[in-house]
Amino acid sequence: MYVIVVYDVAEERVGKVNKFLKQYLTWIQNSVFEGTVHKALLEAIRVGLTNIMDLNYDTAYLFISSSPNCLQRETIGVEKGFTSRII
Amino acid sequence: MYVIVVYDVAEERVGKVNKFLKQYLTWIQNSVFEGTVHKALLEAIRVGLTNIMDLNYDTAYLFISSSPNCLQRETIGVEKGFTSRII
Repeated sequence: MYVIVVYDVAEERVGKVNKFLKQYLTWIQNSVFEGTVHKALLEAIRVGLTNIMDLNYDTAYLFISSSPNCLQRETIGVEKGFTSRII
Repeated sequence: MYVIVVYDVAEERVGKVNKFLKQYLTWIQNSVFEGTVHKALLEAIRVGLTNIMDLNYDTAYLFISSSPNCLQRETIGVEKGFTSRII
């Protein structure tokens, strides 16, 4: 499945969240990662974020699409962090 | 259709982009907006962003889903800017 993660965490946790997500997903811009993952890896991302984040202060949104065909991506301006594996 | 807009623009254009997108979409967190829009409004968003942005420097990604059923959203931590109209 395809997942977009956008997060907003306290400054002292930004580096940790970034480092964690970089293991599994592709950075696309400030606080936004994307990638195609299996179910088990998606669960590992949920668990990892939950452990790193302060759940009373930080936020992460996961947008998950089971079928890549139903989500279309468009870019306006400069293409930055995307991989060649485009949905 | 449902759209997520994530943008990364030079500091001097952040306010303009924010103000523009707030007219049509819901702010969810830093540089991320979401909303359900008709085709004509989506086109207005594309045109507006293109006019405001420096296309050689700034970036905006639009993730567009024609069917709300194929995109699932999960929140980890604090729910911030979402409306009650959840996909």
